[in-house]
Amino acid sequence: MFNRYFNYKNYMRITIIGSGNVATHMAAAFKNAGHRILQVYSPNLQNASMLAYHIGAQAINNLNAILSDTDIFIISVKDDAIIEMVKALTQHQKLIVHTSGSTNLNDLLAFTGKAGVLYPLQTFSKNREVDFATVPLCIEGSDVDIKADLEQLAATISKNIYSVNSADRKILHLAAVFACNFPNYLYIIAQQLLAAHQMEFDMLKPLILETAQKVQEQPPASVQTGPAVRNDKVTMDKHLQLLNHQPQLQEIYLLLSQGIIKNNNEGHGDK
Amino acid sequence: MFNRYFNYKNYMRITIIGSGNVATHMAAAFKNAGHRILQVYSPNLQNASMLAYHIGAQAINNLNAILSDTDIFIISVKDDAIIEMVKALTQHQKLIVHTSGSTNLNDLLAFTGKAGVLYPLQTFSKNREVDFATVPLCIEGSDVDIKADLEQLAATISKNIYSVNSADRKILHLAAVFACNFPNYLYIIAQQLLAAHQMEFDMLKPLILETAQKVQEQPPASVQTGPAVRNDKVTMDKHLQLLNHQPQLQEIYLLLSQGIIKNNNEGHGDK
Repeated sequence: MFNRYFNYKNYMRITIIGSGNVATHMAAAFKNAGHRILQVYSPNLQNASMLAYHIGAQAINNLNAILSDTDIFIISVKDDAIIEMVKALTQHQKLIVHTSGSTNLNDLLAFTGKAGVLYPLQTFSKNREVDFATVPLCIEGSDVDIKADLEQLAATISKNIYSVNSADRKILHLAAVFACNFPNYLYIIAQQLLAAHQMEFDMLKPLILETAQKVQEQPPASVQTGPAVRNDKVTMDKHLQLLNHQPQLQEIYLLLSQGIIKNNNEGHGDK
Repeated sequence: MFNRYFNYKNYMRITIIGSGNVATHMAAAFKNAGHRILQVYSPNLQNASMLAYHIGAQAINNLNAILSDTDIFIISVKDDAIIEMVKALTQHQKLIVHTSGSTNLNDLLAFTGKAGVLYPLQTFSKNREVDFATVPLCIEGSDVDIKADLEQLAATISKNIYSVNSADRKILHLAAVFACNFPNYLYIIAQQLLAAHQMEFDMLKPLILETAQKVQEQPPASVQTGPAVRNDKVTMDKHLQLLNHQPQLQEIYLLLSQGIIKNNNEGHGDK
């Protein structure tokens, strides 16, 4: 039931603290689900206004202008600014949640008794729509009622709700760096290699997509391909030679190839 | 026109040398496009039979059993076995092509005057269908007629035909390792991190898919996210601490994060 903390209504009154990618996409999802976004706070009024305009909220850049008459504060700012925000919000005595992968719930509980986490396990960019219904939302609450309410709120915008404690959420955030941020950087390297030889990144797009689609259905270790998993030293040597003038790329190539070979030898692979 | 080398018919008579993932998927695509696969050779008769059975071809494991009355030999074996196959095939005086990313066309021309390359830029696994029409096929021929014929043949199975010389194809193959094989290994690492904490790889699947879908539409440097591109040292330090007992993963984390930071500082990024 939302009623315990959420003012006897089916829709929530939500105050968004932050105006970055996560704040933007999550606020839009809540708005689309029928909730009301009251205010958007950002130290930069222009950023706050850009987001607030789209979701019919008030933009503010002064913490003193925050209204107490809301149901939930959602803090979506850089990790090192979260606590400062919590301190400024406790006086309103409402539920405060953050959206951070690596910030402990206890860090908030040092300042407020009603705290939670709504961590979206997805990569968000400006100018790109995401179907929020597929975004895994990881929930944590400072008590069972808050947790239940957050699960219910989360279920209005996503079909993938997980209960994850702070320790596991940190692991999840770390794993997301390996599964998203690092692969994207490898795409950049691939693009730069092609560009240096007047070839288009377009050529690699079907390969990149298929690589991600494969592991939707099969464990990644069972679909590993390439010279390293075949222990094809001739090809790996050729590749290292091509990278002769790029020692950093050589180092990445070696380290990841060694990892693939080791993982395969330990029997985690399937081929 | 196919006619020059291809015996005055619209369909080709194709002999497949090899029975691995590339041979299997490419042979099926040619069969589906109406060509005739005459024979499949593999030193392992069971492997040859498995592929041959599905495409109505004869399975052989003896090079002496290869028929001269074909239009094209397609060699799809390990790189270090290609030349041995070429030597055994030249007596038939037909067009010989290989499907390898990193083998020079000249390596074949030392033994035959009619040679070419059909390199599919995709990752193939057994038990997984691939829509061959989307697979980029990189063509090279030892003369303009062979090249034109191979382009026409390739066009019967794919919409993405590229003309790529041997030097560029090597770069392409290297780029594919960065864009496919290494990201898949990073998925394995992510899965293992989660498994060690009783969390399911399923949680990461939407993130992995979105990361690959993003770069179908936007340059990867413009959609890089995560602690490194924000130069968020607090989070990176937390992550390195979580990897305290896995020095190899720490090294990978550091090296890739440094790459992202450096790339961003050099202004290749967009945020």
